[in-house]
Amino acid sequence: MLVGEIGEEKLLQEVRRIFAATNADVPVAIGDDAAVTDSPSGRQQVWTADLLVEAIHFRSHWQTPQQLGRKCLAVNLSDLAAMGAAPAAALVSIACSGKRPLEEITDICRGIREVALEHGVAVTGGDLSASTGGMVIAIAAGGTVGAGDAVLRSGAAPGDTIYVTGALGSAAAGLRLLENGTLSKPDDSDSETLRNAFIDPQPRCRAGEALAAAGVSAMTDISDGLSTDLRHICQASGTGAQIRMEDLPCDEALLRTAQENEWDLRELMLGGGEDYELLFTTDDESCGDAIRRYSSESGLRITAIGNVTGADTGITLALPEGGTTSLPAGGFDHFRAEGRGGRHTGMGGRPGDDD
Amino acid sequence: MLVGEIGEEKLLQEVRRIFAATNADVPVAIGDDAAVTDSPSGRQQVWTADLLVEAIHFRSHWQTPQQLGRKCLAVNLSDLAAMGAAPAAALVSIACSGKRPLEEITDICRGIREVALEHGVAVTGGDLSASTGGMVIAIAAGGTVGAGDAVLRSGAAPGDTIYVTGALGSAAAGLRLLENGTLSKPDDSDSETLRNAFIDPQPRCRAGEALAAAGVSAMTDISDGLSTDLRHICQASGTGAQIRMEDLPCDEALLRTAQENEWDLRELMLGGGEDYELLFTTDDESCGDAIRRYSSESGLRITAIGNVTGADTGITLALPEGGTTSLPAGGFDHFRAEGRGGRHTGMGGRPGDDD
Repeated sequence: MLVGEIGEEKLLQEVRRIFAATNADVPVAIGDDAAVTDSPSGRQQVWTADLLVEAIHFRSHWQTPQQLGRKCLAVNLSDLAAMGAAPAAALVSIACSGKRPLEEITDICRGIREVALEHGVAVTGGDLSASTGGMVIAIAAGGTVGAGDAVLRSGAAPGDTIYVTGALGSAAAGLRLLENGTLSKPDDSDSETLRNAFIDPQPRCRAGEALAAAGVSAMTDISDGLSTDLRHICQASGTGAQIRMEDLPCDEALLRTAQENEWDLRELMLGGGEDYELLFTTDDESCGDAIRRYSSESGLRITAIGNVTGADTGITLALPEGGTTSLPAGGFDHFRAEGRGGRHTGMGGRPGDDD
Repeated sequence: MLVGEIGEEKLLQEVRRIFAATNADVPVAIGDDAAVTDSPSGRQQVWTADLLVEAIHFRSHWQTPQQLGRKCLAVNLSDLAAMGAAPAAALVSIACSGKRPLEEITDICRGIREVALEHGVAVTGGDLSASTGGMVIAIAAGGTVGAGDAVLRSGAAPGDTIYVTGALGSAAAGLRLLENGTLSKPDDSDSETLRNAFIDPQPRCRAGEALAAAGVSAMTDISDGLSTDLRHICQASGTGAQIRMEDLPCDEALLRTAQENEWDLRELMLGGGEDYELLFTTDDESCGDAIRRYSSESGLRITAIGNVTGADTGITLALPEGGTTSLPAGGFDHFRAEGRGGRHTGMGGRPGDDD
């Protein structure tokens, strides 16, 4: 059945049934003019929104609708995690042609529900509309943080250690495989690992909250690539930074695949976006132990990759072969590069990044 | 200059500059991974989201970009008003081709800012993305309401009086004028009044808060048309209703224009959507005086149009010529009617409306 055949009311009914499981603790869920959620006292609200646009951020044949739904919510939760916020609620809006299969939309919603349930997020509403172009999925998410406890990009200080969760560059490699349409051999688990890194990123919600509680000084998520996102922290904090190339964490699958395809590993790890790992800085004296304890308890790899410096030294990369080089900006521009896989930067980019 | 020429970073910078004026009291405004707002203690959060899609909800030549921006935020604030909530923050996401003029986007943002400042709303973030289709504007808005004070659709009781703010049918008539491309005479202020009702609806935020404080029993905004929106209240409340045709409030401009064009006035007033007026029910004994006082102090027309009845009598219309008729559902379906001016129902429609 097509979306246009079931009609708006029945489609809404389907969608609301799917999201009902996320609304167990919500005073007023989907079905009124707006939803109502409880607001824990003494906490501030944290807000973010991201668009995923067909032919810009995704192509339908790259992943199942369910995987697409998972990613749509995940990229929003990643922004909340980067503030140290506990996610609470999300609004899901989808514009698509009435000629799309009904199951595509309901499967996208099921994927969103999976991630919502994994992270305790209530899907409290949204909107559905026809469109004459490709699909547009707009999600807004909200969470809470203790008053004054949000971890901003602006808190880094010279001498702080720079850390990153997980591994870098895998999502960018996965996107390259998808764009190249590279066929994987039947047992090619490396390609699958990398494609999955792009298709189904894991938002670091629990890590974000734990790191905020540990008192890290600045934090952001890696959506634009390490190089650009580190620049965001340095610009907001008025600092420089030095990163050690040899310490950048990398998945074995990426190592092997880059070698096999003669890809530039540095370019992928420094410039590749959409890892949705957390990049943060901290005064090691006060927080180092808590970070190592969290890493060991959670099993999440957390790697020290460099240090915050004064602004005058800029942002540099220490090379394994000795010496340093300035770290290229490696930004990405949606509007100039229409039709390529894109990044989700929201409005968080600092003005003047491309100066 | 085109959006694709200025590039994403500089466009974000422009947009952030435009919205800065709305963020004076916000702890963390646009520019980090997410924004942070204060959360007044003892209040609940209220959430809503609406999509406006080009060629579905609007056509670019119908209004200026600034007017379009105003409406995008207004339809969201109308949903918050219908809950009795005080609006607080909004997230603005826009997907469009890089070939659109930069000024179109910045003017849309200026229109959003106007309405935000009129209603004390902080625009705390959002997203910008290229798209290969028409423009899609996705706004999510949040507000607060005293714990347990949200006015739901489900609170109406037999015997309650049914009220509506403002006038009915003007927006539907305005849409008809726009769709017909009817040229107005140089002094045709009636056409302008009606087109403006569609193009620039006024969200009844202050009225919504005042009516909630007065203790009204159920409330919704008129986005789908009186007939459908009243049905939402009756279905949620398990009641019927009787409306008096001769008491429905109507603008003089609509009266004259309908007569001139031989339009069915009842159809416009009962089935026409997008008025964004408030439809509410109340026990007149306890709230009638407060409602009349608010109307007289604010200058906002508030009209008693009928009564809530038991569910067994259904929803009926008392005719001026005597007798009653059952009120047609008069729903509207986005997906079945792609490419026509559409309504903004969000996910609030009650399941089973079209049964």
